[in-house]
Amino acid sequence: MHSISELKQLVDKAIAELIFNAGPKDLYDPINYMLSLDAKRLRPVLVLCASEMFNGDLKKSMNPALGIEVFHNFTLLHDDIMDNAPLRRTQQTVHSKWNVNVAILSGDTMFVKACQLMMMTDDDKVRPVMELFHQTAIEVCEGQQLDMDFENLETVLIGDYIHMITSKTAVLLGSSLQTGAILASAPDSDAKHVYEFGKNIGIAFQLKDDILDVFANDKKFGKQKGGDIVANKKTFLLLKALELASGDDSSELKKWIQDGNQQPEAKVEAVTKLYQKLNVKELAEAEMDKYFESAMHHLNEVNVPDERKSALKDFAGQLMTREN
Amino acid sequence: MHSISELKQLVDKAIAELIFNAGPKDLYDPINYMLSLDAKRLRPVLVLCASEMFNGDLKKSMNPALGIEVFHNFTLLHDDIMDNAPLRRTQQTVHSKWNVNVAILSGDTMFVKACQLMMMTDDDKVRPVMELFHQTAIEVCEGQQLDMDFENLETVLIGDYIHMITSKTAVLLGSSLQTGAILASAPDSDAKHVYEFGKNIGIAFQLKDDILDVFANDKKFGKQKGGDIVANKKTFLLLKALELASGDDSSELKKWIQDGNQQPEAKVEAVTKLYQKLNVKELAEAEMDKYFESAMHHLNEVNVPDERKSALKDFAGQLMTREN
Repeated sequence: MHSISELKQLVDKAIAELIFNAGPKDLYDPINYMLSLDAKRLRPVLVLCASEMFNGDLKKSMNPALGIEVFHNFTLLHDDIMDNAPLRRTQQTVHSKWNVNVAILSGDTMFVKACQLMMMTDDDKVRPVMELFHQTAIEVCEGQQLDMDFENLETVLIGDYIHMITSKTAVLLGSSLQTGAILASAPDSDAKHVYEFGKNIGIAFQLKDDILDVFANDKKFGKQKGGDIVANKKTFLLLKALELASGDDSSELKKWIQDGNQQPEAKVEAVTKLYQKLNVKELAEAEMDKYFESAMHHLNEVNVPDERKSALKDFAGQLMTREN
Repeated sequence: MHSISELKQLVDKAIAELIFNAGPKDLYDPINYMLSLDAKRLRPVLVLCASEMFNGDLKKSMNPALGIEVFHNFTLLHDDIMDNAPLRRTQQTVHSKWNVNVAILSGDTMFVKACQLMMMTDDDKVRPVMELFHQTAIEVCEGQQLDMDFENLETVLIGDYIHMITSKTAVLLGSSLQTGAILASAPDSDAKHVYEFGKNIGIAFQLKDDILDVFANDKKFGKQKGGDIVANKKTFLLLKALELASGDDSSELKKWIQDGNQQPEAKVEAVTKLYQKLNVKELAEAEMDKYFESAMHHLNEVNVPDERKSALKDFAGQLMTREN
C-alpha cells in the first residue's frame, strides 16, 4: 500500500498528463490552466486510498479518481463566478483571466470531461459509479444554492448550516472514498462505511476551517485571520454566538454585523472577544469532535485488517491537527 | 407506430410530469420554468421515433428521450447568459427573471438531471448511450465556443461555418436518433445511418433558418425578418456574399457591416438586394439540398422496411418546406 503523499504524487503526475488540446483554444486553455494550479488533490487521493484498502487495482482507479478532481475543479470554477472571486489558489480565477462566458462554457465542458473519466471503468462498475457520482453532483449543486440562500437570511439554524456544509463539501469526500471502494469490488456495507467516514470527516474538516479562521496560530496560519468575521460569513461560530448571546452581548454582536462602516481590525477583535466570552470555540470543537468520532466509528466498522486502515487514519488525524 | 405529432403529445405529457420540487426553490423553480415553456420537443421525439422504427419499447425510451430534452434546455439556459438574451420562446430568460448566478447553477443541475435520465436504461445500454451522450455534449460545447469565437473574426470560411453549426446544432439531432436506435437494439450500422441522417438534416435545418431570416414569406414567418442582417450574424448567406462580392458590391457590403449607425430597415433592404444580386439564396438552397439528399441517402440505407421510415421522411420533409 502507498502512503497518502505517494498517492498524491501519482495523482499529480496523472493530472499533468491530462492535457486537453484538441478543439477551440478558448475552451480548453482555461481547463488546462485550472487543473495546473497547485492543489491538495484530496479527493482523487481518497479514491485511490479506498481502492487500495480493498485490494483494488490502482491503475484501474486512476481515471475515475481524476474524474472526481476534474468535477471538483468545475464546481470551483463556477463557484468563483458566483462569488465574484478574483483569486483561486493565489492565482487569477478563470473569469478574471478570461471572462465570464469563457468560465461558464469551460466549466460545462469540464463537467462532461469529468463524466467521461468516471465512465472509464469496467462494465459492471459503470452503473454504481455513475449513479453515486450524479447523486453527489446534485447534492453539491444544492449545497452551493443553500450557501447563496444563507447570505440573504438574517440567521440560520445550526442544523441547516450542517446540512449545507454536508452537501456542499462533505458528500464529495464520502463519495470519493465510496467510489474507490466500488472500483475495488468492496462489499456494499464497507463501501457505505467509508462513505460515512468521508462525509463525517468532511463536516469536521469544515468546522476546523471555521475555527482556524478566527483562532489559528498567526505564525502557522499563513493568511489573514478573521476573514469570515469581516465578511459576516455565517459560520458555525457566528451562528452559535447569535444563538447564545443575550442582552448587551446580543446587541453588540448585531451592531458589528449590521454596521458596514467599521474598521476590519476592530471588528475582528471585538467579535473574537464575544466568541471567547460565549465559549463558541469550545462548542465548535466539541461539534467537530463529535463528527470526527463518528467518522472513526465508521472506519472501525470497515471489515479489513487494521493495518489497511492506517493511511486513512493518518489522513484523518492530519486534517484534525492541521494549523492552516 | 406513432406519428410525429402523437409522439410530441407523449413527450409533452412526460415533461409536464417531470417536476423537480425537492430541494432549494431557487435551484429548481428555474428548471421547472424552463421546461414548461412551449417548445417543439424535436429531440425527444426523434429518440422515440428512431426507437419505434427499430421496434423498440416506447416506454423504455422515454426517460433517455427526456434526458436529451433536459440537456438541450440546459445548453439554451447557459447560451442565453452568454448571448445576453432577454427572451426565450417569447418568455423571459432565466437569468433575466432570476439572476445570472441562479441561471449558472440551475443549468449545472439540469445537466446532472439529464445524465440521470439518460442512465435510466437497461444495463447493457448504459455504456453506449452514455458514451454517445458525453461525446455529443462535448461537441455542443465546442460548437458554442466556435460560434462565440466567430463573432470576433472579420470573416469565416464556409467550411468552418458548417463545422460550427454541425457541432452546435446538428450532432444533437443525430445523437437523438442514434440513442433511440441503441435503445431499440438496432444493429450498429443502422444506428450510424440514423445518426448521419439526423446530423445532415440538422445542417440543412440550420441553413433553412439562415434563408428564412431574410427571405421568408412575411405573413407566415411570424417574426421580424432580417434579424441576422441587423446583428451582422455570420450566416451562410453573409459569408457566401463576402466570398463572392467584388468591387463596389464588396465595398457596399462591408460598409453596411462596419457602420453601426444605419437604420435597421435600410440595412436589411440594402443587404437583401446585394444577396439577391449575388445569388446567395440559391447557393444556400443548393447547399441545403446537398445535406438534405445526404440525409435521405442515409435513411435509405437503414435496413428496415420502407413503411417504418415514413415518420422520419415526413419529419424531414416538414423541416425543409417549413415557412417559419
